[in-house]
Amino acid sequence: MNIYDVSKKAGVSIATVSRVLNGNRNVSDKTKERVLSVMEELGYTPNVFARGLGLNTMHTIGILCSDSSDAFLANAVYYLEQTLRKNGYESFLCCTGYELENKKNYLRLLLSKRVDAVILVGSHYLEANKADNDYIISAANEVPVMMINGYLNHPNIYCTLCDDYQAVYDTVTRLAAHGRKHFAFLYRSDSSSSRIKIKGFRDGMEAAGLTISEDAVRLCPNDIPSTQTILTDLYKEGISYDAILTSEDCLAVAAVKFAGTAGLRIPEDLEIVGYNNSLLCICTAPELSTLDNHVETLSITTVNTLMRVLQGADVPNKTMISNDFIVRGTAY
Amino acid sequence: MNIYDVSKKAGVSIATVSRVLNGNRNVSDKTKERVLSVMEELGYTPNVFARGLGLNTMHTIGILCSDSSDAFLANAVYYLEQTLRKNGYESFLCCTGYELENKKNYLRLLLSKRVDAVILVGSHYLEANKADNDYIISAANEVPVMMINGYLNHPNIYCTLCDDYQAVYDTVTRLAAHGRKHFAFLYRSDSSSSRIKIKGFRDGMEAAGLTISEDAVRLCPNDIPSTQTILTDLYKEGISYDAILTSEDCLAVAAVKFAGTAGLRIPEDLEIVGYNNSLLCICTAPELSTLDNHVETLSITTVNTLMRVLQGADVPNKTMISNDFIVRGTAY
Repeated sequence: MNIYDVSKKAGVSIATVSRVLNGNRNVSDKTKERVLSVMEELGYTPNVFARGLGLNTMHTIGILCSDSSDAFLANAVYYLEQTLRKNGYESFLCCTGYELENKKNYLRLLLSKRVDAVILVGSHYLEANKADNDYIISAANEVPVMMINGYLNHPNIYCTLCDDYQAVYDTVTRLAAHGRKHFAFLYRSDSSSSRIKIKGFRDGMEAAGLTISEDAVRLCPNDIPSTQTILTDLYKEGISYDAILTSEDCLAVAAVKFAGTAGLRIPEDLEIVGYNNSLLCICTAPELSTLDNHVETLSITTVNTLMRVLQGADVPNKTMISNDFIVRGTAY
Repeated sequence: MNIYDVSKKAGVSIATVSRVLNGNRNVSDKTKERVLSVMEELGYTPNVFARGLGLNTMHTIGILCSDSSDAFLANAVYYLEQTLRKNGYESFLCCTGYELENKKNYLRLLLSKRVDAVILVGSHYLEANKADNDYIISAANEVPVMMINGYLNHPNIYCTLCDDYQAVYDTVTRLAAHGRKHFAFLYRSDSSSSRIKIKGFRDGMEAAGLTISEDAVRLCPNDIPSTQTILTDLYKEGISYDAILTSEDCLAVAAVKFAGTAGLRIPEDLEIVGYNNSLLCICTAPELSTLDNHVETLSITTVNTLMRVLQGADVPNKTMISNDFIVRGTAY
């Protein structure tokens, strides 16, 4: 039983059903009545039903994030909760880890607690295998689903993303213009966001007429010392890079520490660029140049969009925010 | 209506009522029956009642933390959720912020969602004004309440703490033995944990026969550059410290950066000690010596204690874990 069945049976568009569900006033009484009676006939749950009528709302939003110890995700959650509270909503957070089965269980648990909407934080909610995202689509048939840094094209799913592709592409262009030739890209996990960044890296290199050497796009372990060791080993084998781009600031920290032990001058011999503009950036010497993906703006935009959805406004399915290159000591 | 009323009316101890509530088998059938009938008579809620009998449990634990963007709290939440999941429990996290009213609202919200227990993470849940903790005590009459780094002596409240007092005291002793004389202590918020650390600092200084100069115990702003500016201003006024202790690693990062601009050698001219053993410690040059308060052990111990409570075991009200001094580059 889902929104499609209701739309088909009532002879109206999915957008119209969605408007009725979200209490939008721009629906004629006649249409609204027809949709509501079809929902009743099909046994669409009274829970969702009541929510659509604006009754019985708990003013509670469910948030899913994969890992609260990740600084980007933790900050996103912080800003989401602050902004929701300002709008009179409380929130529940579930940290699901990275296993698909746990993500599904937690989403089901949140829906059983009658939240008004769910927010999925981080690109780890977008599985490489498309069918694995069906549980998200099925949730969107019950409540609005907001995604941060993930994109699914489906009614009642609203996505806010930062433009990771363009950010990495532009950074390659920028450093190539300084005469850098030997680029590496370090990333930490096989998320959809990593895949997009790698695509930006490859396309940027091609556009700059540069070749990517073997081993130059590297999945790195979760801790700084191990990443440092990997770089040191590569260097011993005679592989020398003059530009290191990363998917996370902590990988750039490892690169700075590696340069220190290898006697490389930053940024003269080696330019290094972090990602996220986290607290780590100002801890290193020199401080990290980085790409700021505006976690605060992403989070506030997501909540603002959600508030409009809950008020029944027609809202675009996708909002894309550009990143900024922050110049500090490791790249110019 | 609370556990006291039941205990009084049934003529048994609070511990016995608690055992019945938590389904402990070490209660005679006769006593159990009497307690249950008193609960029924007094209208003790069927929700709690069912939970005590092991019925109707959702296997869900509520977690409250004040601020998910704080690295220590975020890590605690991460380990709590991992360990709960291993034990077959899901968890909800509410980030309450620091306002008492919001803490109360969120605790009420969690209880309304029928969680099996709540975990309060961080010393911010212990208010300086004792009466302000009544909402926690009242929650403990419904479900077990676990506290990390906060201590309340009350039935059905179980506390796991790190020994912040001793850790700071011992660090003063250690650095005084190196001949350090001019100590500063930087802290970031007026939490119960900060108050305990400051007490350890003052007592340690007295025991070492050292005087604490004016301005030496300082509340610092939330960001590294402002803290750095404060230290620089103090130094310009002719106040020179040879040992800086902190309540958080990020304050120690500010001290390292200050020393760099002031031309002070670390650790020769100035020893610096962080707190928490966070990721920041290995980002600075030199790397931070710090006090490790074992966030992983604190979290795992809390969950293990909770599992025993839910199984009806008699569990001590307080568990204290010692901290470790981690030697890196800023203090020896």
